[in-house]
Formats: sequence, structure tokens, C-alpha cells
Amino acid sequence: MWAHIQLNAGSATPIYRQLYEKIRDSVLSGDLADGVRIPATRELAGLLRLNRTTVSAAYELLEKDGLVRGHVGRGSFVARPSAVPQLQRSRPQVEFAELTPRAADAAPSRELISFASSRPAGDLFPVDEFRQTVAEVSASPELASILQLGSPLGYEPLRHWLRAQLRASQTAGPEDDVLISSGCQQAMDLLVRTLIQPGDLTLLEDPVYPGLREVLHREGARLAGIPVTPSGLDLNEAARLLRRERVRAVFVTPSFQNPTGSTLSRTARLELLRLAAEAGALVVENDVYSPLRYEGEPVPSIKQLSQAGGGVEVVQVGSFSKIAFPGLRVGWVLGSSRLIDACAGGKQWMDLHSDQLSQAVLLRFAESGRLEAHRHRVLAAGAARLAAALAACLANLPEGSEFTRPQGGMNLWVRLPKPVDTSALLRTAEEHGVMYLPGRYFAVGRPDPAGLRLSFAGLDEERIARGVAILGSLVAAELRRAAGYGLGNGLSRPATAMV
Amino acid sequence: MWAHIQLNAGSATPIYRQLYEKIRDSVLSGDLADGVRIPATRELAGLLRLNRTTVSAAYELLEKDGLVRGHVGRGSFVARPSAVPQLQRSRPQVEFAELTPRAADAAPSRELISFASSRPAGDLFPVDEFRQTVAEVSASPELASILQLGSPLGYEPLRHWLRAQLRASQTAGPEDDVLISSGCQQAMDLLVRTLIQPGDLTLLEDPVYPGLREVLHREGARLAGIPVTPSGLDLNEAARLLRRERVRAVFVTPSFQNPTGSTLSRTARLELLRLAAEAGALVVENDVYSPLRYEGEPVPSIKQLSQAGGGVEVVQVGSFSKIAFPGLRVGWVLGSSRLIDACAGGKQWMDLHSDQLSQAVLLRFAESGRLEAHRHRVLAAGAARLAAALAACLANLPEGSEFTRPQGGMNLWVRLPKPVDTSALLRTAEEHGVMYLPGRYFAVGRPDPAGLRLSFAGLDEERIARGVAILGSLVAAELRRAAGYGLGNGLSRPATAMV
Repeated sequence: MWAHIQLNAGSATPIYRQLYEKIRDSVLSGDLADGVRIPATRELAGLLRLNRTTVSAAYELLEKDGLVRGHVGRGSFVARPSAVPQLQRSRPQVEFAELTPRAADAAPSRELISFASSRPAGDLFPVDEFRQTVAEVSASPELASILQLGSPLGYEPLRHWLRAQLRASQTAGPEDDVLISSGCQQAMDLLVRTLIQPGDLTLLEDPVYPGLREVLHREGARLAGIPVTPSGLDLNEAARLLRRERVRAVFVTPSFQNPTGSTLSRTARLELLRLAAEAGALVVENDVYSPLRYEGEPVPSIKQLSQAGGGVEVVQVGSFSKIAFPGLRVGWVLGSSRLIDACAGGKQWMDLHSDQLSQAVLLRFAESGRLEAHRHRVLAAGAARLAAALAACLANLPEGSEFTRPQGGMNLWVRLPKPVDTSALLRTAEEHGVMYLPGRYFAVGRPDPAGLRLSFAGLDEERIARGVAILGSLVAAELRRAAGYGLGNGLSRPATAMV
Repeated sequence: MWAHIQLNAGSATPIYRQLYEKIRDSVLSGDLADGVRIPATRELAGLLRLNRTTVSAAYELLEKDGLVRGHVGRGSFVARPSAVPQLQRSRPQVEFAELTPRAADAAPSRELISFASSRPAGDLFPVDEFRQTVAEVSASPELASILQLGSPLGYEPLRHWLRAQLRASQTAGPEDDVLISSGCQQAMDLLVRTLIQPGDLTLLEDPVYPGLREVLHREGARLAGIPVTPSGLDLNEAARLLRRERVRAVFVTPSFQNPTGSTLSRTARLELLRLAAEAGALVVENDVYSPLRYEGEPVPSIKQLSQAGGGVEVVQVGSFSKIAFPGLRVGWVLGSSRLIDACAGGKQWMDLHSDQLSQAVLLRFAESGRLEAHRHRVLAAGAARLAAALAACLANLPEGSEFTRPQGGMNLWVRLPKPVDTSALLRTAEEHGVMYLPGRYFAVGRPDPAGLRLSFAGLDEERIARGVAILGSLVAAELRRAAGYGLGNGLSRPATAMV
């Protein structure tokens, strides 16, 4: 394709940006497959009769988006489509605005309603209580020890508090221990580096949080995606693989899974434990969303259920970031003392230990009761936002659309009627001031072109209603356009919750 | 050896601890070689007629010390001797006290003078100024954005400040950019994961900071240790390898190297740049100690010298931790924009981004002038401590001892007369209230049983004098003992600085 790239010197869009967009579109559409080597700047400059710096500038944008991966000195390669763009990268509204400059150019003053980031609402941050907490930590006699080098296991007073909490809730057993990580992402990276060898087969949800898929991929694990239904991981498929293959570990987010919002029932969790025990597989439970239940009865975590015995090792990952302040990177791993000690060895070489100031601040925030008080405010806001999102989907998404109906968390999953492609629709949506993450970005082995994730927790109800209404009208227009071209599928169902 | 382990049921030392010590000594002495599989607890319990929990308890201590590495479910293996114990692990005085309980048992009230940790003195922490800084950050209007998710590249105002500093000192060129890491250790891990492929040949100093050796080892790099002389890396040896082999990268700490304290001259740095350019190798410069020069003229960093051109890519790593507060994990990588963008991709999957509260606090500490004022106090104290350490070595180490004479940093390197083995001597030293890290711990391919690192920056002059005096008398006693057994080497030189 390289020699046939058409660029328009008369356009207002600079050549490097045209080139970047052409290549970007080819990667996103799959025309340029995963792992394909992209030509050296000199080579492509020669082919297209461009200046090398022009090609370099285009490549830099592609690299920034995560669409190509460069090994310095070894050339650059197309990243596999399911891994693009760099998800969860900070402030996605800025990143995506850069990615599609036309939206910004066309309507520089338009507000962007972003459903793209699974993070708490900044407008709910209890800034005054945070200030009070920081002042208390700063005045405490422990300050000098907080400032000195710490332990790879974490700040001991925080570990002590967490152990007590986790024991009181019967999440931690007598043999369990806790290691503090720099957030949930590092906990996953650390666990994968500690537990997984190249070639190990791992089961994970499909669609899944891309940060998990990436760390497994980087470690050379073999990834088997298990479909996620509205009631969580498909246990039949999990059972089939666990019985047939030698599975090293199952990674699961049983409560309000990211991106689908789905939750595994207690019965299903017990069944998964039984299957994992039979297969001799570890279970790694991502529990970061479970404190955000807005309605319905709590379900015991897999780690809690495993305390009854059964011989399967369950590791649980938790974090303060989904309730409190994600800019402070503090999460934890709960597992057997033996496993935690092994993790401490790995953690030491990753960053010696996690930041102690933030550990001390979050401990004080929790101990003072402010965390729990704040959680209640977050729950009230989250319930209203979830209700607004569900109502907006029901009212605005065209016939044939489906969406999950989570009882908590930050995300719900929408499937649009055929032939709408959510990756293709994204640019139009951004031009109209709405952003989301397309289903492809969360794929392990089953890219879902009709799926998209709506992260509702960071937006107020008015914006949620407005954003989903815009999205709904764009989808309807796209369906009319497709029907006009004879691409419709004749669907006549109304939008439905995939309960 | 396993069946022949002798344990004494009548001893006051519990059996699990006796077992632990026997295995530990075998690993440290090399009798148990690197990579040897250790028997399952059940197996060893059977061999020695012990309870399995006894064996488990011993294994846990070994694992905690980093003397064995377990892969959960795969068995455990001896760690290679040069990698033990887990160095730089927090508060080594505690760790080592655990490691050799007899010192603590014998003299529970005795103060331990620890030369084991290369870290700033806690007694110099400007706690009041830190409190003032935290209050300012806490009151600032930026607080809400600090608390929200950030960028993998780091907190933008801190990056802005660092870029300006590094450009003003002509360390950063116009094409360079900065990424904030969670301290220098993560910067190294990130660079190695971004730049190094399994099998890549890398050159590093020997002896070296074990945290670098470990991340290279984990990534599957081939490691070639270049001897360090009192005037830094042996350039002849480096040149030989760079010319003969395909070297991917040279890792070097040209100023006040850890552990030797040695510094490369300007001429040698230029020569290294020339050699790396010829060979097409990257240079990774660890610059964390250079702000701690107590005497002599500053030497431009390799990164600064590379701004004159020459076609070699130099990446520099810096950190606040050696001057300010190591409990706050903030370091940085300086390199070409292209490389920094590649690092940002890796950083995202390691921990999304570094803690923003500490980034904002350190920025304010620096911007307010408090960092530079504090650095001047640290320099004054460091100069006195270095002088005390050198005077104490000269006065107390027996004839035939040698030591480096650094002009800054935190460490000096001592070589004791044959046949003293610093690993073997450590237990006696601890019993007498002195701790250091033996030369073996820093080895790449040339373990130096006569070498040890004295980290002087964290101790006041009185303790330094007392600690070195104790060490000197123990070495003298050891030499007399060896001479009595006919093991002496007849050395009659006085202790000398290896200038």
C-alpha cells in the first residue's frame, strides 16, 4: 500500500498529518495487519517523494497513539488492532482530541462529553477533607520515617490497617498477607511478572480491561479470551478450557467488570473456584469495582468464598483509585504470605517501593472515616448517574441496540445494530462532541465491531442524557444511511437491556 | 548435601532457624550453586525427619532474603550468589538483623552502625520546610487536577520545570524530552524493558548497583561486566568488547559510582562516547549522584558532552531521592522525544503514571528554592562525613587494605588484605554492631571476596569513626587468626587510598 498513499499538497491539513491519518485509518480498519513492519522514514520518504522529517512527524503521532511500536534501532511495527489506541492513557479527552484534530478544528468551543474514561468524577473529590488529611499526616511524628526509604511490601501502618480490614470481612485468611502496589495496574504487572512464564496459558474475560491484556502479552503469556455475558464470564467456555488445557491462571473481575459492567453470581463464583481447583489453576480476582455497588445485594468476593477451602489459590487486587483519588497511586495485592514474599522480590526491582507520602495520606483518609463517608457520597452520585445512563440508552438508542444493566461500577456495554461499526462511528461522534471507547479496544480474540463502552461515573446526569441523545441520533442516521445503501439488517426490535 | 544437614535439637536456636542458617551459609559460600533446585518441603522433611512446617518456615526466611526464588507451583531454586541478599531492600538494618539474629540476641541493647544503605541521612531531612511545601501544594488551585488520573509522561508542570533546568545546563538538547518515573529504579526497569531484547549484550560496571544487574537479568539480557578502577570504568576493556561484539547498550554511572565511588574523567567520558558511536551502542547514564560533589571541579555529564554531536544516543536517568526524600518516589528519564514516547507506552502498562502528589510536592520544593538550599546543607554534611570515613579508614584499617577516595556521592569501596573474606566477616561484624555490604553482592562476573562497600552519607562523623575502628580491629584479628593458621599473605603495606 505504501507507494499508493495519496496526499493532497493543496489541503489545509499539513502533509505529515494527512500521512498520519492515512496510516492510522489503515491500521484501525485492519488493512495494515498486526505486526507488519512499517518502512523506514528514509524509505517511505523516497517512495512518496517527501522530506524525511515529514515522515518522521507522522510516525511520531502514530507511535504516540500506540498504533505502531518502535524498537529503537530495530524498526517499527504495526501494533495489533485490538491494542490501539493507548487506552486509559491519562486525560483521554485531550489525547483523542489530538488524535482527531478535525473535531477540535470544526468546533473549538464545543464541550466534549467523554464516556471514555473509567475513573471517578473529579467534581466529587472531597478537596477540603483531603487538605485536612494532608495537614494531619504532615504534622504527625511519623513524617520523617515516611520520607525515608521504605519497604517493598509497603508502608507498614497501611498494611496493618488493610490486613485488619480484610480479616474483619473474612477476605483475608490467617495465611494471607498484603503488599502495597502503585495502583491496580502495577499490581497486575507485578503478579504477571511474578507468576506467569512465557508460554503459560491464561484465561481472561473477552472483552477485557486492556491494561491486563497488555501486561500478559508483554510477558509472553498465551491468552484465551472467555466471552462475557451480562451475567459475567461464560462458565461453560471456561470449564471447557480448564478441563482440556493446562491453564496457569484465570484473571477475572467478578463485580462490575470493566468494560461490560457485568457481575458473576455467587453460584457462578463457587463454580469457577471448583473448576480452578480441579484444574490446578490460580485465580486472580480484580476487586477494584466491588465497593461501588449502587443497588442489589452484595455478593461475596471469590477470595472470600475461597476461605471455605477447596484448595485453590486466589489472589485479590484492590485499590483506592476507584473511590478516592486516582492521582495517588496506591493499590494492593492480597495473597498467601508465600506469594506476597515472592511479589516483594519483584516489586523491589520494579521501583523499590510505592510512594510513602500517598500511602500515609490514604491511610489517614481511611482511618479518619473520611474514606467511608466519601464512598457514600460516591455511591449516591453513582446510582443517579447509572440510572441516567440506563434511561438515556433506553430512550435514545435505536431499535436493535442492546446494553448491559450493571448494579454498580463505572461502565456499561452497548451493542449497536448492524452494520454500525463503533470504531468508524467514533470520528463522527467526536465531531459532534461525544467520545467513548469502541469495543475493539477491549478485545482479546473476538473483536466486537458493534460494541462500545460507556463510562458514566465521571459525568453528571445532564451530560449523560445529552451525550447519549447525540450518540443515539448519530447511530440512527448511520442506520438510515446504511439502509439507503442496502446495508440494513431489517432489525425492528427496540433497544433492550441485556439482563 | 541435603541428607547430611546436621541440626541440634538441644540448641536454644529453633530448628527451623538452624536449618535456614545452614542452607543460607551453603548458598553464600557457593556450596549450593546458582539455579540448583531445592527439595520440596515434603521431601526434605522426610530426609531430615522434620515436620513439614519446620522446613516451610526455613524456606520462607530463605525466600525473604532472596537466597531462593520460588515459582509458585514450580518449585524453588537457589538464586545466583551474586544476587543475594535482596539488596537495597528497605531499612537494611532491620532486614540484616533478622538475617543474623545472633547479633541482636547477643547484644540486644547495642546500637548497630550500618554502612549498608546508600541513602541520604534522615537526620538532615528539612522536615519543617517539607511541611511548608506540602501546605502550599495542598492550598493550590491545581490540587483537583493533581488528584485526578495523570499522564504516563508525568505531571506536566514538573516536566516543564525539569526540561527548563536540563536545557539551561545544556544537558537536554532541542530534540530531548523528559518522562517522570517512580524513582531511579523504575527508570532503569522501564529503559531496560523498552530498549533491551532477550539476548542483547549489555555492558555494565563490575561491581555495580545490583538493582541494575537484576532488571537486565530479568529481561534476559547478556551481561558483560567491565572492571571499575578508582578512575572509573576500565575503558580498554570496554573498547575491546565494543569493537569485538555487537553491544546494544552501555550502562554507566560516571560520577561517584555505586558501589565504588569512582568518577570518570572528562577525557574518559569523551572516549566512551566515541567508542559507543563507533559501535552503534546506546549509552545509559545514571546521573543520580552527580549533584553530590563535595570537592574538586564538576565534570560535564556524558549527556552534556553528547550535545556536541557524534551520533550516539545518550539516555540520562536522574532522581530527587539522593538529595531530598527517598520515601517520595520521583525520578526521571531524559532522552530523545522518540525514545521518551516509546517509554511512555511501557510506563502506562507498568503503573499508568507516577504518583502526582509527590511530583507536585517535589516540584514546589524545587521551585521555591528549598531543594537547592537543602542540597547545600547536604553537601556540607557529606563533605564532613566523607572526610571522616577516609580518615577512619587510613587510621584503622590494617596494612594491606585499600580504599577509594571519592570526591562526592555516598559510597566508598574498601579492599581488605587476603585472606579476609568480607561475606564471612559480616556476621562477626554484625555481632560487634557494624554492618556493610560485602563485595560479592555487587558482582556481575567477578565476585570480589575482599571488597566491601562503606556507605557513609547516612551516618554522622562520630559513628563513622567508631564503626570503622570496630571494623579495623575485627579485620586485624582475622588476619592474626589466619596468620596463626598459616593463611597469611605476608603483606606489610599500610592501608592506602586507591587514588
